[in-house]
Amino acid sequence: VNTHDILQSTQTQVNRALEHCLPLADTAPKRLHEAMRYAVLNGGKRLRPALVYATGTTLGIPATQLDAPACAVELIHAYSLIHDDLPAMDDDDLRRGMPTCHKAFDEATAILAGDALQVLAFQQLADNSVFTAQQRVQMISVLAKACGSIGMAGGQAMDLAATGQATCLTLSELETLYRYKTGYLIRASIELAAIAAPSQNNESFSHLMKYADAIGLAFQIQDDILDIEVSTEVLGKQQGADTAKQKTTYPGLVGLDFAKAKVKMLYQEAIQHLAYFGADSDPLCQVADYISCRNY
Amino acid sequence: VNTHDILQSTQTQVNRALEHCLPLADTAPKRLHEAMRYAVLNGGKRLRPALVYATGTTLGIPATQLDAPACAVELIHAYSLIHDDLPAMDDDDLRRGMPTCHKAFDEATAILAGDALQVLAFQQLADNSVFTAQQRVQMISVLAKACGSIGMAGGQAMDLAATGQATCLTLSELETLYRYKTGYLIRASIELAAIAAPSQNNESFSHLMKYADAIGLAFQIQDDILDIEVSTEVLGKQQGADTAKQKTTYPGLVGLDFAKAKVKMLYQEAIQHLAYFGADSDPLCQVADYISCRNY
Repeated sequence: VNTHDILQSTQTQVNRALEHCLPLADTAPKRLHEAMRYAVLNGGKRLRPALVYATGTTLGIPATQLDAPACAVELIHAYSLIHDDLPAMDDDDLRRGMPTCHKAFDEATAILAGDALQVLAFQQLADNSVFTAQQRVQMISVLAKACGSIGMAGGQAMDLAATGQATCLTLSELETLYRYKTGYLIRASIELAAIAAPSQNNESFSHLMKYADAIGLAFQIQDDILDIEVSTEVLGKQQGADTAKQKTTYPGLVGLDFAKAKVKMLYQEAIQHLAYFGADSDPLCQVADYISCRNY
Repeated sequence: VNTHDILQSTQTQVNRALEHCLPLADTAPKRLHEAMRYAVLNGGKRLRPALVYATGTTLGIPATQLDAPACAVELIHAYSLIHDDLPAMDDDDLRRGMPTCHKAFDEATAILAGDALQVLAFQQLADNSVFTAQQRVQMISVLAKACGSIGMAGGQAMDLAATGQATCLTLSELETLYRYKTGYLIRASIELAAIAAPSQNNESFSHLMKYADAIGLAFQIQDDILDIEVSTEVLGKQQGADTAKQKTTYPGLVGLDFAKAKVKMLYQEAIQHLAYFGADSDPLCQVADYISCRNY
């Protein structure tokens, strides 16, 4: 199983589950449901669901049991992309090679589609009969923290506050922003699968969280690198968007070479924390490999 | 205890709880937290929390145990107002006599404040140790349904789709829109308190839900009436906004006199369903009274 295969099998699994949990396009209000489906069922990489399933494999939980948490993190991710792309936010026209949700529909529908996807994520976790009520409440609490104002939504606010400013962020401020903006949801993806495991021990959990923090930062730095190096066609979104918006980026602060070296260091750090789990963690290893080598 | 007193005691109780559950304004990201606090701690009527506490009194649950569900429904309501007021939606500048959130801050901050308030509502329910995990999961499920695409967010989408159209909605379509847009959250406010009750019986629940549906529709028709009859100063939002936007309204379809008579009928219907509970339902009776007589 190579990296490509592991993402592909995740996609097959989670896309089926997402298709199932989204309201049908002919259910009223139709335009809203069309927009929700457009924004979710659009061939995303499904990285966060891959982390849920891969953590499941590491801890001995079958993928079929993890569809609800996998859908939940992807629904949150999809909602955040819709809102981030809005004219009042990052004002992006292109996402995954297609018009962004507010371009394909309209701004009001895009705002509401994001709102409804966020709440659908929590509904998936609440209504999922695979886990005990205690596990579900824990999952909801973890996910809520990860995407609230001291989480993903807060990260987007920090990003907007920093964009187009005369003074750059410091490296430490930028790392904080990245942790909020993408790190916490990546962490939550792994944590949800850990909550699903019947017996958690502190050592195992600590290794998983350190793995999560390393790949979370690596992912965001790699994103900055791709924005510089990869064409719009391959990226599926506007190349050079960060520079155009005068965003502080990791390569901008430390240089492209150091940024690339940092991704490699974080990859090594992530892999080291998987040693504890032996061969069971192979899928998590492959996700780390994908994150540090991805070119789109 | 008259109507005024019951809303006032609710306000004291829930405002304290809201103040406590919102992040402090000096917690990063500060501007986002300021906006969240601005939108929530602004002297709202707290009608939905009043329904939570009043249902609690009816079913013998002390108000102190119901702070989390009361906060949750008010946070959802506050988020929905922020997003509804956005330029891409209803484009309102005034709310409760003050500049709307995107006017006081900016559009991006307003969108994110709404997003973060929605998720904070679910966090309140998940982290609340008063109830069993089973009760919390049930509450989260009910609230999620009430505010999703086949609930409040869907109602706003229907409202936007119908606004400014050459053809009016039919009365039945308008009632569906109202049920989605405000009815489901009003229903959920009562349902959350019912879930908190140690033993629910079907008859009691059925009466509560019929009460909820009657006051929910009465509330929205009264809103339409106030939009026609009450000045901007008293209303705290722009008078005549519905007419200006060519919205179909209840008085527009059936006339002002019939609309007023319908509110009275719904009030009677609501009160009849409270007979089952005797004197314990006095606070719910007072809320119904307030809804059908309110003038702002």
